[in-house]
Order: sequence, then structure tokens, then C-alpha cells
Amino acid sequence: MEEHAPLWDGEKSFHAQHSAPGAFLSFTLGRFGAPGGLGAERNGPAQQDVYVGAGPADGAKRFFPFFTGAGDAEARRYDVESAEAGGSDRLAVFGDEEIARRYGLGTDAWEAPGLRLALYNGFEPIPDPETARPAALAHAIAPVVTGELTLDNTEGDAAAEAVFGLRFDLQGTQPMARGGAGGWRGFATRGRIGFAGQVVDDAGRACEPPETACAMDPATALADPPRVHALGSLALLRMPVPAGARRTLRLALGAFVDGDATAGRAGRYLYRRFFGDIASVLDHGLARFEDTRSRARAHDRALVASALSPARRFLLAHATRSYFGSSQLLEVGGEPYWVVNEGAYVMLNTLDLAVDHVFFELAQNPWVVRNLLDGFVSGYSYYDDVVDPATGDHHPGGIAFAHDQGVANQFSPPGHSSYELPGENGCFSYMSCEQVCNWTLIAASYYAATGDRGWLRAREPILHACRESLERRDHPDPAARNGVMGLDGARCAGGREITTYDSLDESLAQARENLYLAVKGWASRLGLALCFGALGDREAERAALAAAERSAATVAAKRGASGWIPAVFDPESPGHQSRILPAAEGLVYPLYWRSQPHGGAASAWLEEEGPFGRLIAAIRAHTETLLAAEPGSEGSNRFADGGIRLSSTSNNTWISKIALFQHVARELFGIDLADADEAHARWETTGTAAGMAMCDQMVSGDAHGSLYYPRCVTNWLWRDAPRLD
Amino acid sequence: MEEHAPLWDGEKSFHAQHSAPGAFLSFTLGRFGAPGGLGAERNGPAQQDVYVGAGPADGAKRFFPFFTGAGDAEARRYDVESAEAGGSDRLAVFGDEEIARRYGLGTDAWEAPGLRLALYNGFEPIPDPETARPAALAHAIAPVVTGELTLDNTEGDAAAEAVFGLRFDLQGTQPMARGGAGGWRGFATRGRIGFAGQVVDDAGRACEPPETACAMDPATALADPPRVHALGSLALLRMPVPAGARRTLRLALGAFVDGDATAGRAGRYLYRRFFGDIASVLDHGLARFEDTRSRARAHDRALVASALSPARRFLLAHATRSYFGSSQLLEVGGEPYWVVNEGAYVMLNTLDLAVDHVFFELAQNPWVVRNLLDGFVSGYSYYDDVVDPATGDHHPGGIAFAHDQGVANQFSPPGHSSYELPGENGCFSYMSCEQVCNWTLIAASYYAATGDRGWLRAREPILHACRESLERRDHPDPAARNGVMGLDGARCAGGREITTYDSLDESLAQARENLYLAVKGWASRLGLALCFGALGDREAERAALAAAERSAATVAAKRGASGWIPAVFDPESPGHQSRILPAAEGLVYPLYWRSQPHGGAASAWLEEEGPFGRLIAAIRAHTETLLAAEPGSEGSNRFADGGIRLSSTSNNTWISKIALFQHVARELFGIDLADADEAHARWETTGTAAGMAMCDQMVSGDAHGSLYYPRCVTNWLWRDAPRLD
Repeated sequence: MEEHAPLWDGEKSFHAQHSAPGAFLSFTLGRFGAPGGLGAERNGPAQQDVYVGAGPADGAKRFFPFFTGAGDAEARRYDVESAEAGGSDRLAVFGDEEIARRYGLGTDAWEAPGLRLALYNGFEPIPDPETARPAALAHAIAPVVTGELTLDNTEGDAAAEAVFGLRFDLQGTQPMARGGAGGWRGFATRGRIGFAGQVVDDAGRACEPPETACAMDPATALADPPRVHALGSLALLRMPVPAGARRTLRLALGAFVDGDATAGRAGRYLYRRFFGDIASVLDHGLARFEDTRSRARAHDRALVASALSPARRFLLAHATRSYFGSSQLLEVGGEPYWVVNEGAYVMLNTLDLAVDHVFFELAQNPWVVRNLLDGFVSGYSYYDDVVDPATGDHHPGGIAFAHDQGVANQFSPPGHSSYELPGENGCFSYMSCEQVCNWTLIAASYYAATGDRGWLRAREPILHACRESLERRDHPDPAARNGVMGLDGARCAGGREITTYDSLDESLAQARENLYLAVKGWASRLGLALCFGALGDREAERAALAAAERSAATVAAKRGASGWIPAVFDPESPGHQSRILPAAEGLVYPLYWRSQPHGGAASAWLEEEGPFGRLIAAIRAHTETLLAAEPGSEGSNRFADGGIRLSSTSNNTWISKIALFQHVARELFGIDLADADEAHARWETTGTAAGMAMCDQMVSGDAHGSLYYPRCVTNWLWRDAPRLD
Repeated sequence: MEEHAPLWDGEKSFHAQHSAPGAFLSFTLGRFGAPGGLGAERNGPAQQDVYVGAGPADGAKRFFPFFTGAGDAEARRYDVESAEAGGSDRLAVFGDEEIARRYGLGTDAWEAPGLRLALYNGFEPIPDPETARPAALAHAIAPVVTGELTLDNTEGDAAAEAVFGLRFDLQGTQPMARGGAGGWRGFATRGRIGFAGQVVDDAGRACEPPETACAMDPATALADPPRVHALGSLALLRMPVPAGARRTLRLALGAFVDGDATAGRAGRYLYRRFFGDIASVLDHGLARFEDTRSRARAHDRALVASALSPARRFLLAHATRSYFGSSQLLEVGGEPYWVVNEGAYVMLNTLDLAVDHVFFELAQNPWVVRNLLDGFVSGYSYYDDVVDPATGDHHPGGIAFAHDQGVANQFSPPGHSSYELPGENGCFSYMSCEQVCNWTLIAASYYAATGDRGWLRAREPILHACRESLERRDHPDPAARNGVMGLDGARCAGGREITTYDSLDESLAQARENLYLAVKGWASRLGLALCFGALGDREAERAALAAAERSAATVAAKRGASGWIPAVFDPESPGHQSRILPAAEGLVYPLYWRSQPHGGAASAWLEEEGPFGRLIAAIRAHTETLLAAEPGSEGSNRFADGGIRLSSTSNNTWISKIALFQHVARELFGIDLADADEAHARWETTGTAAGMAMCDQMVSGDAHGSLYYPRCVTNWLWRDAPRLD
């Protein structure tokens, strides 16, 4: 029955986002005693109690501790005892020792005596809506999560009953029924979210549908005979299981968001092409149940078959669920529009996240990357001057891109993000130069993966604009350029540009003269060279390569006597003394291009004997130096538990960026840091993160921001990651 | 400047619902330190902090205490002092003694030194959509509330600034602008709710629009220069006022709910015929500002000109705002569909509330009453058997109506309410018989007011079905009928029917043999006689009158030696000893018909020398007996503070039902109970009610249920209530 091995043997009480690609929908479950459940368009777990349990048909049931108040192991033990004694009107829960969790890439399974809940994530690539078969597209983006609840009463000599349900966090409960015997029963609230169940026997043959109950409290919802009180929000499906039998309740949990889902620019979910209401969504989920389960199990097997460590398997599976939970496939003006929301911050298509998602997305659905690039050009690009930080003089600048496209389903005005503000020196300042790098790097990666020369040709003017913009952000005088950003964008209005590591510390807060951004800028110039080469524009290719050489030379020259490079080149800067591992981050792009069919000369660019050998060697030495320190020692880039610290001067670190760095360190420098991931997996399953699914930003091992976050799919870069197809 | 007198001099710190008819929208404001603000489709106040204040352009502002934490008068005093000393980063608020509130029917005005906020409720009858001029209909149902904020800096020698704004309780803030100089500026969130402001001078001439600021916290939103950070949800309009000038910020606060607003049956707001987005709504609100203000001031004057006491003026104004805040004009299947939501319980069109709303609605928009009657016939009527409570035998029953049509924008399945359950003896049981009375009484009242014989003819079969149903619910044997309900509906399935006073006590919990319902049943039979008479069906008219005679005789015969009638006729019932004022409630219907142009013989029915003289005399004696007891004494129907207690055995009482009773007592028995309303007004402005706008159910003077409630518009029955036109 069990087709996937337990992948992670650590803490089992943590939330996971069971999500539907493109639906901005998650069924969040797993943190004991914490609310979760079914939520659409949320910036964190839904606030529902979830009831999954079983017991004698005419007696007290026991439940998984998926509801508020069930989090305390001592209280649970008490409840179990008193419920067995018949003396408690609180719900009895299974004891910790009775509960097993198996957490695979496709399956998240919970086991207790006689009872098994499995939730299936059968993610598949989303085909390009322009060319997809409608049925294939509908299935890939159906806003529904599936699972099954099996109660084994084969050894029992009395009728038993299994229960699945939740307390909706929105009033207005509607019972739903489809078909008679063999049909399904379910509940929705305001047609927006809902769930349905269908009973099958061991052979998968449909049985009598589950009974429905709805009330204001669990005791009433569990009373006999089952009845539906629409004023209640606690809705249960109840599956009777005769003595000697085993029955399974197949589950579909879905959403249907009607009308315009976004404002600013009116967008509706693309799934509305295929589904007219919540019932049709749930019906689809159940009809395609076996197919989804097969896919999920194939994902499980692929991950088990990989050479990844258990901790890495866990991190990969966990990241994938949260990524899809933030994804949103819209139609804007009748055209498909891909959005990844920024986790708990719910900014739309944050460009400095998109550049990290690109490796995973290009392996899955390259068209979404093209869609994103086009959306930034048409809606969220702008041109501005650049400003000399010493004199305040304005000089001609060039194209840039907004940090994001809005927040919380609200698109920003064209050319503006929701995040950036003038006059700032830290958080909320502009990231103009880094966003030019990001757009360029995504475009080059898209071409390297797809060879889509037609698109590249159409975007040739933008590529030229990006090259010019990077040059002008270096120095107004071409002769004085050193390949590194030297001027802030005029939109900063007296402030200074920052990097995507906005909330780290001085080592990564300033964009000018910043080591991380300098290497990323080098890679961006190479990305432009790759594109111009593919377009046959030798002159532009040569200019981009020459600019990359300037970047490389500047960075390599900053290497100090002790082997490492300062995070900020200016010796007066407070960030000058920081040692940052993201110095290597920019190397991930040529590394990626090298692995792709249209990666051009990327392989040569990474050779230590190649044109950028001094830079590669400098970063290798920098990395080796930083990693040589004893974990936990003063100034070390490892925490005492082995987890990786991106900056030697901060306890802030980002899981997604660590995975990128690990990939570069291993593939380019042969440094295997997989041993760090036991610590990272522990961080993700304890403390704040346990209640917020995948989290990115950690402070000394506790999630601090970037909660419920999509970006950690960078770990699909790890060698041995399976292919999710 | 002030056109309306202060109407209520009691407590000023209480929430009022500034609402837009048919939009299920309220701007809730007034309870110090409590969240409120702008909410659509809510079962209570929105959860926003509201910022209204002023001060020197370059210095600290002071605010009305409309935000969380500003509720403590001591803390406010502290803040004021420390803000004056420049030592606090908390917002300074006006002191209690500096704040005046004037609460009229049309205007709710707040005054502080130099600053005045007025919110205008320009309610007008909603014309029948079938025949209305589109512009008139659009104006009547525009989902927008208007107001104005005036800062008087005529004595000032430095620039000042006034501020209006709030913290949206949904993420995703969109700044909006319409026009240049003289245009408006505003904010919306997800296109769903928003506000806008336009600056005018004393002559009403448009000035430069307000400045906009948006941030995560008040200090940043108030910083200079004003800037908009879309990640923040705290959105302000800032109006500079030069030295020596006075400026007014005209305000529109609105909602726009897209897509299907209801599930179960898909309904959309009818206002969407006229408005395409939130901006068009706000634009309309500002364009029609002067007209709305004129209407509101006319309402103020009409109420001041009435002979009502200050407490009654307050209660009437307060009730009206909350009624409209619960109202919802939809289109279902392309046809207008009128809904009044049941306050905090948000049940749709609760029929036992509708029968109380009918007097106000027939004076305003008779078509909504017809619409509701038709909706119940086509969607929420059913037929069932009746059951002998002694034997359990089933007998043929008849038509009945569901208690409501759903809950929280979720329509129930046809023929079913969200409230009623089988097998109950108290709350959540069926009210089948009372709902037959309610539909009948509404129908008769509709005809009495309108003379719409065409409608009556179309509904003739239903009227016959109602007559037959009432008879069969009396006794299966026609010869044994006594005009009083004796059998429960079969849907009770072993339980028993209850009355609308579901949560009172035994005096009003049982429907069978219940005094209140017996008198209401008498009135229902008269209502049928009125309708059959109008239709020329003399036989049916006679049969209805004969049934009414049976009811009257039965009730009159229950009068005991001490002058009062037991609440439940069965001497074994625990409710037998209760003395209930709602014995008189059923008299309100003939009293209403008597006042209307098509009221038939209603006048004669109320004569003590008329055909029902014994009943009228018995209820007069009953009422006089109950009111003779010393307020606050054991078993009295008055609380010690003079408030009215509906049942002598319960501390539960309902403000809406009290108003009905007061009307009957005065008009029929000459008993003026207006002195009770000082207490009722106090109840509505202190304790729980102060934070929940108009509340209906009170326990010992504190609101206990039926919060944020529409039903108290029964007080428009009071003699001297103005006409709202």
C-alpha cells in the first residue's frame, strides 16, 4: 500500500502547503494544534480547524491533532484517557507515538492505528495555453488538491466511521451533492472554497457516498443522525465502514474565485476557461483522482530514487509545495498572465524572486518565463537618469524594471512597484540596477534553455537597452567604466539603491560597489553576449564581453591578502569587513547556461584558464577561505549547527540563496555542503517555520520573514534533483 | 453652518452605521478606541482604524479617537499633554471635553476645535427598478456614503492641514486620481472598497485636490513630503489649509463588489447596472455630494420638527442607519431581488424580521415588499404534514415558508432555511406556523398600503393555501378548531415549533397554545379576510372572519381573574405563569391597515364594541395589568431604569418589539410609554451596543444578541415619526 519511503525522520508537526499550480490555493496542514486548512489568495495558512479522525460508529472518535488546542502533547494524552473513560466532551486525539508522517514529493501521508490520510501533489508542467490541448491544460491548472482517507476495519467486529472535515473561516456553508450511490457529497462556502468526498472500496469501486454533517461545534457535527445546519461552519464528511471492511474516502479540496481576481489591472483566473463553479472543480478533482495519485506516487519514487540525502529530499519537496501555493495563472486582457506571489508578502512577480525561480520554471514550463519577461517589458519597465553619488549630478541613464508588479492581487500603476520608495537608504529603496541584471539574466536563461530565437529577435531592442543601461549605471564616462555599478537611479531621489538582500546588513544593503551585485553584473553582461551572439550581432556581443571583462578585472583586483574579497569595495563602508558567500551567486548563470542546449560559450567563461579565469579563481579562493572557519566561530559563515550563514556579520540568512550557493560551490569548486542541510531542514520544521510552511529568511535558525514562501525551489539546482515531469 | 440641533445628549462614544441602501455597506464610526471603518458584506463593524484630525501643517496633528488604543480617556489626556510637549510618538487625540457629537437622522457630526466632520445619510426611497428612471435609481442605490471634513483656519496665522484616512483591513492599496486641479484623490483596496476626497472652499468651489499618503504606520503616513507606499494599508488624504482660510474635504466612501455576490443562487448587486468600478462609484458620490447633503439636512430638520422626544429621535435615527446597512439589492436571474440581512447573524430575508420591517418599507418602497413576498413563494415555500403532539399522528397540513433564505450571501436550497433543524424543542426548530402568519400579514399590509389588486389576484391561490394551512395547523377536525395553533409541522420530526422569540424563555419558546402567536394568528385570519374581501370572494372572506372569531374567543376566554392572560395556555407549561407584553403585538396589523387607504374593515375590527371587542378588551386589561406593577419590582414588565421587559420571567428583551408594543399601547389603549426610551437609548449607547451600532436583543440593558441589527425600524410606527422622503 505504501509506495514511498519516509523521507524525513525529523519533527512531524509542521505545516505543508498542498497546492494547485496557478490557483493561488493551498490546503495547509500538519502543525499540531495550529489552524490551517483550505485557503485561496492568502498570505499565510487559512485559519480553519481540520478534523480527520475515526472510531466506532456509535462511539467516540479520535482525531489527528489538526485543530486549535490540540497542540499540547500533555493535553492530548489527557484527552485520550478521559475520552476513553467517556468523561470528556473535548475531542480525543491520537497520541504522538501513534502518529507517523511520511513526507514525499508527491505524497504527504499521516498514519494512526487503522487510519491513513494521504494528500497528493501531482504537479505537472503547465502547457503553454496558446498551444495546449484544452483537456491537458485544464487538468494541469485545475484549482483542486486531492487526497484520500482510508479506514481499515477488516479486523473490526463492529461498524466504524471515518471523519474528514473542517471549520470554514467564512460564514455561509452550502452542502453539495453530485449523483446518488457512488456519487460525491461535499460543502462549499459562498461558492469560493469547498471540498468533496467519494467513497470507494479496495478495488476502487464507488460505494454509497459519505454522510454530511454541519454544525457550530464538533460534538453536534459528530452526533447521530448526521444533519446539516447551514448556520454552522464546521462541515464534516462521515464515512461508515462496516465490520470486516476497508473503505477509502477520496477527497477533493478546491477553490473557485469568480469575477475579477485582481485590481489595478483586471485579471481573472485562467482556470475559469474550464470551470464554471466550485462543484465542477471538485467533480474534476475526483474524476481525475487516480491519475493525480499516480503522478504523485511517481514523484515520490523519483525522489526516493535520487541520490539526495533525506534532509535534501525533504527540503526539495517542501519548497515545491510552497512555490506552487504562491503561483497564480491569470488572464489579463484575455491573454495568459503568469504570477508568482511573494509568499507572505504577496507581492506580484517580484523580479528578484523570479530570477531565482527561473531554473525550476524553465525545466517545467518555459513559457511562463517568457510571459513574465514580456509582462515586465510592457508593464513594469521604466527609464530614468542616473545620479553621481559624490556630486549629485544627473547623467543619462536607461531602462530599468520595477521590483514587483503590485501586492495582494492589486497591480501597481505601470512602471512602478508596490515596494520601492524615493529617498530611502535601506528597505523600500529602489533596486533598479539589480533588476536590469535580473531581467537580462532571465532572458539569457530562457534563450539558453529554449533556443527561442524568434522571441530573442523581438526583444532585441530591450537587450540593447539593458546593455546601455548597465554601462551608464557604471560611469558616465565610457573611459572610466570598471564594469561595476557606480551610480544610483534618479528615482532614488537622494537615497541609494539596495540589493535584493534588503534586510540583511550593510554587507548587502548598498548596491553600488557591491561584490554580490558586481559578480551578478558580470554574469548579466555575459548573458547579453550570449543573446547578441545568438542574434548574430557580433559588435554588441563584443561590447558585452568587453564590459564583462571590466567587471571581472575589477572584482578580481579586490581580492585581499587573506584570500577573501570585501562585500563592499569602498573601504569606508561599514560593509567592507563582511565576508559574503553570495559573491559566488552570479556564477550560477553561466553554470546554468553551460548545462543547456543553447548555452553558447558559457562553458569557456567558467574555466580558470578561460577569459575570466582570474575572477573564477578569486571567487574560488574567497569561498574556500570563508568556508574554512570553524562553524559557529567568530566571523564564520557556518552556524554552530552547521547551517550556512550568508554574511559573516549577520545572523540573517536565506534558505533559497543557500541552495544556489551550494550548487555553485559543488559544481564549480567541488565543495559539497550537503551536510548543512540537516540543520536547514530542522529550521524549516521547528519554531516559526513549523506554522508557516516553507520559509526563506532565517535569523539564527528561526524563520523571521519571507514566510510561506515560494523561492526555495532554487534547490532543484542540486545535483541529483529528480525531474518533475 | 449647523442646520440640525443636537438630538441626543447622552453618551457620544458609540458606533453608527453610515450606510448606502441596498449596498450591504457601512462606514461604521463613533466608538472611541474601537476599530470600525468601511466594510462591505460584513456581520459587524469593519476592523479599521480611522484617522480624522488636524493641526499645523508642519507640526503634530490631533485626532478624533477613532482608532484602536484611543479609547481610554486617561491615556488620551496623557497623549495630548505629551504631544504638546513634543515627547510622544503616539498620536495625540482631542480630549473628551473638546469633542461634540450631533447625531441627526441625516447628519452625524463631530466637532473639535476648528475641525468638523459630518457624515451624511441622504436615504431616499428606492424606486421600483421596473419603472424607475435609470438616473434616479442609480442615485438611490449608489454604493457610497458621503461626508465632509472642514478645517477652519481663518483665525490662524500659519498653514494648517486636515487629515482623513483609514487603515484598510485588506492588503493591496491602490491610489486613485480623477482630474487635475479641482479633481479628486483617493484609495481603494482590490477595487472592492475605497474612498475619495475633493477640496472645496467656502463657496463650494473646487480647489487643489488633497495630497495622498500611504504607509504602514501613522507617523510615516503623516511625514512630509506625503508619499504613497502601496505596501502599506494606512491611506490618508491630507488637505493643506492656508492661514486665514477655511477648506472642506468632501468625502465619498464606497464599495464595488464584482462578480457573483451570492452563491446557491447566483446574485449580483443591481448597482452594477450603473457602475463599472469603484472609481465610478466614488465619482458619483462626489458629483452628487450637494444633493445628498441637502437630503440629509432635510431629514435632520424633519426629525427636529417632530414632536418626538430626544431619546426617540436618537433611536429612530440610529435604527434607520443600521437597517439600511443590512440591506442588499441584488439581481438574481436578471430580476431585482431585495434582501435584508439579519444583522450580525446575516441570514437573508429572515421572514420574521421582514414582517417587522414592512411598515417602514411600505412607506418607502412598497415594491420591495412585493418582491420579498414573491421570492418566498417561488423559492422558500413548502408543504408539509402536521403532527398531533399528543399522539404523534400525521394529518394533512399545508403551505409554510422557510424562516430565512440563507446565510452570509449563501442562499439555502429551495424550500429550506439556514436556521431550522428537525428534532429541536428550542432554538433552531421550525417556525412554520408563525411564518404562514408572517407571509399573510405582509401580503395584507402590502395590499392595504398599495391597493395592488393585480398582485393580490395573482397570489390568490397562495392566500387560499395560507388560509387552509392555518386551519389545519389548528385542529384536524374542523368542528374542534379553536383558532389557535395546535399541531406542529411534520418537519419538526419529534421536536416542536417555536416562535420568533426563540431565545427568550418558555413564555415565548413554544408556538402551540401560545398567547403571542394566537393573537398574531387572529390578525392573520383578518388579513386573509381583508384580501379575500378585496378580491370579492365573499365565501373565503366569511370563512376567514369566522376563523378569526374562533381565535378571538379562545384568547379572550383565557383571561384570568387577576386580569392578565397566561403566555402559554397549557397550565402544565412552564411558560404558563409568564406575563408577556407581546400579547398585544398582533394588534399592530389591523391598526396599520386602519391607517392605510385600502385597509377595509380594519377600523371596526379594533372597536371594543366591534366583532372582536372581547379580545380587544382582554388585551387592554392584560396590558394595563402588566404595566401597573412598579418598575423593577418582582414580576414587573419594566426594568428598574424604566426600560420595558417583554416577559415578566426574563431579563431578555427586544428593542424592535418594544417599539411595536409602544405603538399599539398608545394608539389603541392610550398608554404613552415614551418615558421608557431614555433607558433604551442608554442601552444602545453603552456596553456592548456602543461597539455594535443598533442592537435589538438586550439582557438587563446590555446588548446580548441581534447586534448590528436592522429590525428596530419598527420605531417608525411611533406617532410623530417624520416621513423619510
